[in-house]
Formats: sequence, C-alpha cells, structure tokens
Amino acid sequence: MSAKFNLSSDEWLIKEKGFIAKYQGKYESIFTLGNGYLGVRGSLEENPNHSHRGTFIAGVFDQAEGYVRELVKTPGWTDFCFWVGEHRFSVDSCKVLSHERILDLRKGILHRTTRLKGPQGRVVRLEIRRVVFTHQVRGAMLDATITPENFSGPIRVFSGLNGDVTNLGYFHQEKTKHLNLVKMERDKGLIYLEMENRDDKTRIALAAQTVFSNAPAKTFKVSRIYGEKLTQVFSFDAEKGKSYHFTKFISTYTSREGYERQLKSAAKDLVLDMVYEGLERQLKQHLEARNKLWEAAAITIKGDKKAQKGINFNLHHLLAAKPHHDPTVSIAAKLLTGEGYKGHVFWDTEIFILPFYIYTFPEDAKNLLMYRYYTLQGALQNAQDMGYQGAKFAWESADSGLETTPSYGVREDGSAVKIFTGEEEHHIVSDVIYGINNYFNATGDTKFLHEHGAEIIFSTAVFWMSRIEKRRDRYEIRKVIGPDEFHEHVDNNAFTNYLVMWNLLYAYDLYKKMKKSDPEGLAILLNKIKLKETDLERMKLIAKTIYLPYNQKTEIFEQFEGYFSLKDFTINQTDHHGMPLLPQGVDEMSLEKTQLLKQADVILLLYLFTDRFSQELKKKNYQYYEKRTMHKSSLSPCIYAIMGLEVGSHKRAYDYFIKTSYIDLDDFNRNAADGIHGAATGGAWMTIVHGFAGMRVRQGNLCFDPWLPKNWQELTFIINWQGSRIKVQIDRQAITFQLLDTKGKNIIVKVQDRPIQLDYKKSKKIKLKKQ
Amino acid sequence: MSAKFNLSSDEWLIKEKGFIAKYQGKYESIFTLGNGYLGVRGSLEENPNHSHRGTFIAGVFDQAEGYVRELVKTPGWTDFCFWVGEHRFSVDSCKVLSHERILDLRKGILHRTTRLKGPQGRVVRLEIRRVVFTHQVRGAMLDATITPENFSGPIRVFSGLNGDVTNLGYFHQEKTKHLNLVKMERDKGLIYLEMENRDDKTRIALAAQTVFSNAPAKTFKVSRIYGEKLTQVFSFDAEKGKSYHFTKFISTYTSREGYERQLKSAAKDLVLDMVYEGLERQLKQHLEARNKLWEAAAITIKGDKKAQKGINFNLHHLLAAKPHHDPTVSIAAKLLTGEGYKGHVFWDTEIFILPFYIYTFPEDAKNLLMYRYYTLQGALQNAQDMGYQGAKFAWESADSGLETTPSYGVREDGSAVKIFTGEEEHHIVSDVIYGINNYFNATGDTKFLHEHGAEIIFSTAVFWMSRIEKRRDRYEIRKVIGPDEFHEHVDNNAFTNYLVMWNLLYAYDLYKKMKKSDPEGLAILLNKIKLKETDLERMKLIAKTIYLPYNQKTEIFEQFEGYFSLKDFTINQTDHHGMPLLPQGVDEMSLEKTQLLKQADVILLLYLFTDRFSQELKKKNYQYYEKRTMHKSSLSPCIYAIMGLEVGSHKRAYDYFIKTSYIDLDDFNRNAADGIHGAATGGAWMTIVHGFAGMRVRQGNLCFDPWLPKNWQELTFIINWQGSRIKVQIDRQAITFQLLDTKGKNIIVKVQDRPIQLDYKKSKKIKLKKQ
Repeated sequence: MSAKFNLSSDEWLIKEKGFIAKYQGKYESIFTLGNGYLGVRGSLEENPNHSHRGTFIAGVFDQAEGYVRELVKTPGWTDFCFWVGEHRFSVDSCKVLSHERILDLRKGILHRTTRLKGPQGRVVRLEIRRVVFTHQVRGAMLDATITPENFSGPIRVFSGLNGDVTNLGYFHQEKTKHLNLVKMERDKGLIYLEMENRDDKTRIALAAQTVFSNAPAKTFKVSRIYGEKLTQVFSFDAEKGKSYHFTKFISTYTSREGYERQLKSAAKDLVLDMVYEGLERQLKQHLEARNKLWEAAAITIKGDKKAQKGINFNLHHLLAAKPHHDPTVSIAAKLLTGEGYKGHVFWDTEIFILPFYIYTFPEDAKNLLMYRYYTLQGALQNAQDMGYQGAKFAWESADSGLETTPSYGVREDGSAVKIFTGEEEHHIVSDVIYGINNYFNATGDTKFLHEHGAEIIFSTAVFWMSRIEKRRDRYEIRKVIGPDEFHEHVDNNAFTNYLVMWNLLYAYDLYKKMKKSDPEGLAILLNKIKLKETDLERMKLIAKTIYLPYNQKTEIFEQFEGYFSLKDFTINQTDHHGMPLLPQGVDEMSLEKTQLLKQADVILLLYLFTDRFSQELKKKNYQYYEKRTMHKSSLSPCIYAIMGLEVGSHKRAYDYFIKTSYIDLDDFNRNAADGIHGAATGGAWMTIVHGFAGMRVRQGNLCFDPWLPKNWQELTFIINWQGSRIKVQIDRQAITFQLLDTKGKNIIVKVQDRPIQLDYKKSKKIKLKKQ
Repeated sequence: MSAKFNLSSDEWLIKEKGFIAKYQGKYESIFTLGNGYLGVRGSLEENPNHSHRGTFIAGVFDQAEGYVRELVKTPGWTDFCFWVGEHRFSVDSCKVLSHERILDLRKGILHRTTRLKGPQGRVVRLEIRRVVFTHQVRGAMLDATITPENFSGPIRVFSGLNGDVTNLGYFHQEKTKHLNLVKMERDKGLIYLEMENRDDKTRIALAAQTVFSNAPAKTFKVSRIYGEKLTQVFSFDAEKGKSYHFTKFISTYTSREGYERQLKSAAKDLVLDMVYEGLERQLKQHLEARNKLWEAAAITIKGDKKAQKGINFNLHHLLAAKPHHDPTVSIAAKLLTGEGYKGHVFWDTEIFILPFYIYTFPEDAKNLLMYRYYTLQGALQNAQDMGYQGAKFAWESADSGLETTPSYGVREDGSAVKIFTGEEEHHIVSDVIYGINNYFNATGDTKFLHEHGAEIIFSTAVFWMSRIEKRRDRYEIRKVIGPDEFHEHVDNNAFTNYLVMWNLLYAYDLYKKMKKSDPEGLAILLNKIKLKETDLERMKLIAKTIYLPYNQKTEIFEQFEGYFSLKDFTINQTDHHGMPLLPQGVDEMSLEKTQLLKQADVILLLYLFTDRFSQELKKKNYQYYEKRTMHKSSLSPCIYAIMGLEVGSHKRAYDYFIKTSYIDLDDFNRNAADGIHGAATGGAWMTIVHGFAGMRVRQGNLCFDPWLPKNWQELTFIINWQGSRIKVQIDRQAITFQLLDTKGKNIIVKVQDRPIQLDYKKSKKIKLKKQ
C-alpha cells in the first residue's frame, strides 16, 4: 500500500509530531488541502473536542443569522473513526502512544500515523492519507489502514458525510447554521448528502463510498443516519496484527456551478467512476496534474533548506487557492483555509496575491480580475449607498460585490467596537485598478483590458470624481483610512491620493488609446456607463491638482495631512521573533496619536510605483518609515524586504522574508488557527521574485537586479511574460535566462539596466555586478 | 411566590423522589403536560444525557429519512439551565443532594425542586414550575427560582428555545432530522425561532421571553445563537441565601393552522401579551379553564385512594390529548407523550379512547370522527393501492389517512422483521364505523351522521363489498389479522366478519332511513361516491350470508376458522404483577400454533355488541377465552374487566382495572418511556363507567347495573346523553341521578332493567339490588 504514497524529499514535508491539543487549530490551517474549488482543513478524522474542522467551497456564501454574508462551512467528508468493542478510539479518548502527520507539499497528500492505546491496553495503529484531487476539483479521497497491534476483537469503522456544521457566530462561542438538510440517500455502499444554504438555497451535494478492500467474510456493512450525519458502518472481527484497509472516494457538487438538476446523479456518478477506476489510477492522475502545477510554479533555492521549505509551503497554499475553474470567485484573505475574515476578499488579493498568478498562471490572474468585473454591480450599489457615483469596490467582498465589512466587532469581553474600514478604507478601489494594470503590463492582454478592464477602470474613475472634494485650490480626499489602519478618519492619505491620481489618469489614457484602436468598443462602453467624453477630459484636469502631502525639503511623503505633527516615537526594541515592540510610553489605545505605523503605507506606494520615484527619495522615505513601522499586518514585512533591497538596505531583507513565509508555520501572530495568511503566501513569492531576484517592471520593461541572501547558491523559477515563459536562474555571479515554448518571438529584458535579448530555445547567461 | 403554586390534595399528585437516571424516560412520559395542541414531555430542563425530551404539536408530521411519516419532535422550550462560574449545574454534572418532582394532575402543573452540589461544595436550590396552558393552547410558561444556599458568586442563567431536535430513526440509535431552521430573531428580551418540516414546509414558530423579576442592578442580559438553539443569558453576581426568580412565557404557532403570513407576529404578540399580563393573571385563567375541564370529566371514588389517583392520572392524560382546537387531527396511540408508534392513530382511538369523549366532551368526540372524514381521501387511496374499492382506513394513520404502517420493524440485533398489520389488520375499517355509531347513539347527532358519517359508512361498505369473497355458499374474509395479533393470515376472524356484517347492514339501514328523512342529501351523496341503490340492496343480502365461525353446541365463537384445531394451552401461572406467564412448552415463536391470545378478540366482539348476545353465551365465551388470553396488549385487561362484571365474574375486575390504570405509573410493560398507553387511559375510564357503573347502551337505552369494588363507598361522575348532562352517584345501596343544565327535556334511563324517568333539576335515588 505504502509504495503509492511515497514521501517526497524533506524540503517538501511539513511535520507535526505528537498530538498537542492546543496546536490543533494551527495544524488544521497549515495542513489544509485544496484545489481552488475545495479547501479542506487538516482536522483529525475523528473530530476531537475543540477541533475547528472546516470544508469550504469557493463562492458558497450565506448570511442567515451571521452578522455579514460569509463563506459557508460546508459538510465534511473527512469523518472516519472506529470503535473497539464499546470504546471509541480517538486522540481525546485514548492514550496517544505516537502521532505524526506529514503534509507532502509536492504531492498534495496529508499523511497521518497514530498509535492509540485504549481500555485493557489495546493498541491500534491508524494510518491515513488524505488527498483533495488536483486533476478533478470535485473529487477527493481518504485512504485508511487500521491495525490492532496486540489483540483480536470486534472493530466497528464509521466513514461518513457530516452535515452537522456551523460557522462561528458573531459573539464568543456563538454558532451560525447556514445549511439545511435537503436529502439523504443510502444506496448499497454509496451515501449521498444534499444540503442548501438558507438565504438563497444554493444546494451542496456530497456523495461518498468507502471500499473495505480486505474485509473479512463476515463483515457486516450498513449505512446509518444520525440527524445531519450519514455514515457507512463496517463491523468485523479483527485479527491481531492484521491491517484492514479502507479507501473512501468523495465527490462535491453545488447548484451554483449549474448542476441544478443533475446534482445527485453528477455527485453519485463521479464517486462510482472513482471507485471503478480505483485508488491507484486516481492517484496517478492527481500526481501528474500536481506535477504540472509545480513545473510552472516551483521556486528552487540552493543552499538554504529553511527558505526552500518556506517558499514550498507558501506556494502549496497559493496552488490550493487557485480558482482556475470559475471566473466568478476570487481568493479570500484566508484563502479556503479557515473562517478568519469570514472568507471575504480584500485588497490583499490584487496587491499581494495576484502578482504570483500574473507571472505563473496568467489565465488564473485574469479569472481573479474577472471576479471584480462580475461583482461590478455590487460596487455600483456600494457607491450609491454612500451617496457617490460610479463603482466603489467593497473593502470586504463576498459573492455579490456588496460591502460586507461588519460595522462592529466584538471584544473578548463581549463589548462592541466600531469598525470603520468598510466606510473609509477606499484605496481598495484603485488597488483593483492597479491589479488590472499589473496584469496587462505582464500579459499585453488588450482584449481583457478593452472588454472588461475598461468598464471597471472608467467606473472607478467616476467614483473618485464624485468622492474627491475641491478645497482651496486643490482636490482633496478627506476622512479615509490608508493602508496603515492605526490612523482612521485621516485627510489626504498620500497612498490613497496618489492611487486616485493615477487611476484617473489611467482612465484618461485608456480612453485616448481606445479612441484610436477601438473607437466602436469605446463608444458602446461609454454609452453603457453613461460617461461623456468631457467627463474624461475633466478627470485628467482634476488628477493634476490632487493634493499629495510631501515635504519638499526632506523629500519625504507625509503619510497623511498632519502626520508629521503627531508625537514621534521610533522603534528600538524587538521581541524574540525580531518583531518590533511598542516604544516606552506608547500603549495600544494611544497609537493614533503617534507616528507609529501598523504597516507599510508610503513605502507600499513607492513599491507600487517604483519607477516614478528617485532612488534617493525612496531611500530617505524607507529610512524614515522603517523605524516607525510596527509590522502589525502580514502585508508589511515583504514590502519592506523588497524596498530595502531596492534602496540598498539588505540587512533585514532575509529576516522579513522569514517573517513572511513562516508567519503561519511558526505562528508568529498566534492566529494561524483562523486560517493561512493569504497575503503572506503571495508576499513570500514577491519577496523572492520582486525582491531577491529584483524582477520589476520599469517603463514597461522586465528588469532584473538580483541580490541573494548569503547562503543562497542558486535561485531558479519560471515566469510568464507577454505570452512567453522564461526560466530564470540566478547564482552569485550570473543570471541565466531560457525562453521556453515561445513560437519564434524574441524578448528583451534588462539586467541591472543592461538590455538583453532572449532568443527562442537559447539560454543566455549574464554576468552580474558584484553584490 | 409559592402561594400561587399551592399543591392540590394528595390524590391529585404524582411524585418522583430522587433522580435515578434509568427512570428518566418513564417520568418524562408520565409527567407530560398538554392541551391537545401541544404535548410536552416531562424531561428535565437542563436536558441531561439520555433524556428523550420531546415536544409534539398535534397534526405536525413529516417523513424525510424516516421509514414512514411520523409525528415530528418539534423545538423545545423547556430549556433552562445555569452555570456557577465555569461549572454547569445539572443532575449529571453535580451531586444531587435532593430531587423531587410532583405532577399536580388537577392543576396541570409540574413542580420540581432539586438541590445540586457543585465544585467547592457550592449548593444551589432550583425550583421550577412548568405549565402548558389550558385557556390558551398556544401558550405555556416555566417559572424558576435559583437560590445559592451557601455561597455568593457569579451565576449565568440560560433560558432558550431549542431547535436542535431529531426523531428516533429506523435503526438503533439512528436519528431523523425533520425540521430545518428558517429564521431566528433576538429583539431585546424576546427570542424567536422558526423552523419548517422538510417534506411539505409546514412552519413552526416559537417565541419566548424570560423575565428576571428580581435581577440585581448589574445583571448582564443578552441573547445568544448556538446553531439551531437560541437563548437568553442572564449573568449576575448572586448573593448567598437570596432567591432569584425567572418567569418564561412561550408561544407556539404553526402554518398548518392558517398562520402562514402572520406566524411571527402572532407568536411574538402572544408572548408580549402574556408578559404584559403577568404570571398571576395567566395562571388564574389557566386554573379556571382547568377547573372547568375537571368539572366535566372528574370521577370521584370514595374509599379507594389508589383507584382515585389512578383514574385522575388517566383522565389527566385524556384531557392533555383533547383536540378541541382542530377537527383535522385525532389522538395517537401514545397521545402526544412520546415517539412510540410514531404518533400514529390506530383503532385504539375509536374503540378505547372515543367513549370517554363521547360521554364527556361530545363536541371533541365529533372532532375525532371528523378526522376520519378529512382523511377519507387517503382511505380511498389505500383501497385502490390494494386493488379494492371504497375506503380502507389505514391501520396506522398520520395526517393524510394514507397507510403509514411500516412494512418492516427492526430487532435489537439490527435484523428486519416483516410487519403484516398494515396489509392485513382490516377490522380498523369497521372500528371507525363502530365509533360513529357509538357517538350517534349517545348524542343523536343526525346532522353529523348525514353530512359526514354517511359518506364514511357507505365508503367503507363499498370497501367490504370488494374485499369479501364468495366461497361455496357463503361470504368469507380471508387472510386477515384480528385484534389478537399472535395469529396472522387467518381466515374468517369472527371479530372482523361480525363487524363487517354489521357495517354492511348499518349502511343499508342508514340508506333506508335517509331515503325517508333526507332523500335529497342521500341522492347527492350516492352520486358523489357513485353508489347505486342496487349496491345497497346487495349489501344487505351479502351481510346475511357472511360466515361466522361458531360452535353451535358449545355456544363458543371460534376466534377464526381453524382456531379450535390449534394446540390448546391454558394459563396457569402469573408474574409478580399478576399478569399471565406463558404455559410450559410454549415459546414466543410458536404462539401462532396455539390457542393462546395476545388480547381480547371474541370477548371484545361480545363487549361491542353486548345486547345482541345472551348472558349465557357471553359467560361461556368469557370462561373459555379468559384462561387463554395473555394480555400482551394494553387494550386487553379493561375489556376482560368489563365483560367479567357483565357475566358475573367479578373477582379479577379490580385487578384488571389496576393493570389498566397503572400500566405506565408502575411501568408494567417496561416501555412507559416510549409514551403513555392511550388506549389504557380510555380503558381506565371504560372500566369504571362501563364496568363498575355498568353503564351500557342496550337497544338504544342508557342502562346502569353497577358493581363496586369492595372498598369503594361511592362513585360519582357526569355523563352526556342526548344533549343533557347527568350526574351519576353510586354507593353500595343506591344510584342517584341528577339532570344538569337541560332545558326541560326529560330522560329515561334503565337501572338493572327498571326504566327510570329523570326530571329536570330533580335528583332521583334508586335503590340497587344487593351486589
């Protein structure tokens, strides 16, 4: 049996050793398996006490008694447990003699080996492998072996589908029930469970069959219904030392994918097909598909196992979130790995997660942007609800694009705290446009830009035109929250204002270009969104007089108007993780009165528009803001890493990379249990590719200026650029390019400001200036 | 507080002393409160482990994954519990220092006093009173007092609505989920829960508000949602020795009563009204309504406290089942007290339960019969499904009248056992007609008979005409089960054949009478059910040649054809309850090969048609069958009691009465946990009124021939006869009648064959022949 499940080499393996109840939540998150459609937390199969098991399906949302519409915890299929006589064998009802789990990142397989000692000293060894298929997003399997090591006796095995699921509620310990039971069927070995969400009756169907491949002749097989749970039960007399082997195949379908009528037959048929084809063939297809993904996405680091494992782990989760099956869903801040942030989509997606997809899976990057196109109606509604025009993307977005940021949060003591981000953190609107441009720059996908991007770009520009205010002789944007959320209700946040300026000019430029290249398309679009050409001319004019708080003398951007007048503290202490500690005399409640930042704000602006600012300006700003940045967001260290490398401040770059790539593995923020930090997974990729490899787009050119951490002997990855794939290999002396699968087109890149022509099928090695 | 809840005198009190987990189920059943609309099992408010809590609403059925359509366990509202610090105080998580519950049968109030000792020796006294209102079927209340006896400290009280309910499933430990969550609301102190059944979306709405009448100033009040549960939470610092008092008002509405749109407002408004009016006023109205019921229904026995308590208990449950609010529901074999027999209606209702209603609440008796009228469509379908014509009432009937008897049962070991009653126990059809005639005889309700009864009577006669077979020169009914279910697939069961004969002749006679008195009504009806006058003539002819197995020489009816050829065993041993034991040489599996009976069969026939058989014949049959009857049904002892008294065999009558009236109180059958034996509650009434008082209808006359058990000094009750109410008082020398509330009409009754005229407002005392 085990040969099929051979482990990859160590840099691909994440291990848990021993069962420690309080780490359960963390391992559930980091051991999440997924394929963009399904995300399945790595909870133990017997669902021990306090486990936060969770199975999520991209795009399935509901509100019900929840405070906002949220990603629904859908029925679980990992349920698998056994009883010896009248005793349930579980990590919380037995002595755990040993327990080890290994997530094989390369293969996308979660391995478990647990030895449990029950009453009368009976020891059972349980081995489980779990796979969410990559070749078939609606399929999954669980393979289990049970060995009674020192006794013979009756064993009952339960392998089921579990519809008894609730989301976490608004208040402490509350639970929200989103799914109601529609149908259950038990047909020989096949079990079928259909539920629907409460608000809009989206139906979710699961079918499963567990094959007991070496069942003793007298095995008693039945299926049993326990309320919203449904399970196969196998009762048999086990022999001491003999291993009993079970393979469970599971399928998942929902009515939102268009399976309204065929839900049941589709779900059952897929399981029957998988059972017919068998474990080995399914696994082979999965591994082939998995290999293809890694061929495209892998980053190889020679000389640094920790960094290699870190990036492998982050890429695993980026792959698990990849919504290649559906352009109407996006990627949530916690991917499909937990209930944190209610499964909502934030700016994290366009600014931190999208770059990986743009350069690795451009088609998926387009899907992510199409989500914004499909939710434009919600964005129009949001603007209208606030008294503005055009499209206001939601700070937190679910399936419709309507604003789903809760207005209040709840502190541990039950008291409410007002949340302003939904009302004030408006930069999200232009972050989306930045993502569109980032995608377009790398792909040259004019079709997408004209057919879908333009409508988004113009609609957001219309929003800003209604949002911006004229005061004195300039245009201002007042009462916002910038990326630094320590400071709320601020006026003229430099980051926001700069993006708005850029957004308006981008709209104007696109209008000019389309007028030439696609006048017909433009006319239809302008008519559709009721935009006059004079409006566009006005955008250009207004963009030029948007106020940007900036100190001419010091060349330092003022984060927002009045920021420089706040109490100035600088960070001089770090915790044992190397993360900043609050300076003496500052507490959590008074942060807003200081110049301390939660996260990169001006520096993020300089990162996003790196080719528009002088090296000197970037350096001065970096030096100013770095020592005031608390990095209280997973979105911060990676930006400082990249910008530090850009301004020649290398010394902390590697630390920032480790902070980013190990944020959940080492649980720096003690909240890994809520789900993986999605922005950090993308940030880890960005730190390597945009940071250490120094790959940036400047004036439309793909530029490289590498700097490798001291142990790194070689860094290799593949990127997509203008329809071509380029293999990039960097060592301490040189950078080598290889143009893959291009049909005759040559490409020019820049290495440390030198233009280099890449020819089809040839490798080109460029010597680097000394680091 | 306690004055309001003063206990009635001892003969009205049923007590539980000490908490013994294994008796939980029994007390849950016997402590059921109800008002015909709602039935609420007496489970403890904290829902301890293994409690089979249950709240039932008359007429709310569902199948879902159940094997048959069944009475739904609806959301619970008795949930009330408290925590001291972080410890939940419950009979299963604390030391129970004392525990007493008292069901006050007279007042319909369940009292509880429990003292619990938790960690650090903390003792809390909990007093609860629970009422299901009689004056307002949709209302209920729970009144609770919590006293920390020996400590001061934080207490949290939870008072909620619990939608997390499932019915018992088909197989051992299975659970069927019938209700899905529709809506939850928390609006200040008011909580609202709405669910719907899965098959036909009948909605059930509960609202509740708990008033904490002496809440300390710093009490923290919130409402919390836990999946399908919703609860108010009161957190406060309790002072040692002080009592804290909570009153919870609850309302229940369903969409099947026509509250489709106003469900929520109706449920909330009723609670708000009750809260506004307050505990004392609600209780006063309840007790007034309760008094009225008892004035009509009470039976007073002087000289025998055990008998008095027994009949009080049985009358309590008959009152709790009284479906005065709705003619489309009937009374189930287990009333509204448990899941046994799936809440289905059997022949128990017409033969054993109806008599009480006919003579006590004739309007309710009519409602019960109207249920058969409203389910006639299902009966027509049943006949058609079996290849017959006319109306075949279901052996087990739910809400549509369709057959809901399961085809298979499950033994403890999981194996299936075929159930034939649904296919073969056809006497139910004529049992219903017997009930109609019984009602008509006592009330003279011609309007009902012509408008509703006639259609049922003719439709069942049509069924029998298609069911009966001509063999040789006689009509036979083959392959049936009679009342004695030990013998299946028998031919020509005397009970069944006699009832069929009577049923056909009854139809013919009714046709003749209506032809004279209501020719127009008759014509419309015959046209509606497509019955020709020649068909009716044919009924009469066939009735006359129906075969009745009968031994002319011995004057003993043969229970069915061939019965006398079976192995003959007679009972010669009884268990410690005085119930028959199987004779040596007979086991459970071979019963069908013997003449042993499960329950009254021929004797029941003689009881039903007592005035058609000679005293001699009845006596001979009684003597023959009594010693062969195992009384393995709660429907049996009462019939033997009554018929024993009729044939002068008094000696076991009192024992049979105790067996009947204490079947659940003493849990003779060890299945009280499944619910109260409804037929026995009616049987207890029958034993007293038809047995000891000897009140029978003979040739249309109301006749009395009392025989009182030795301790009984006086027996008093009120009966309804032909629109009048007669108070009957019997002592060892005389019987005294008093005609109540009649408007001038005189009535003639017979006492020991002497006709007696009763005059308005006068009492009449008749001396009895010596007993």
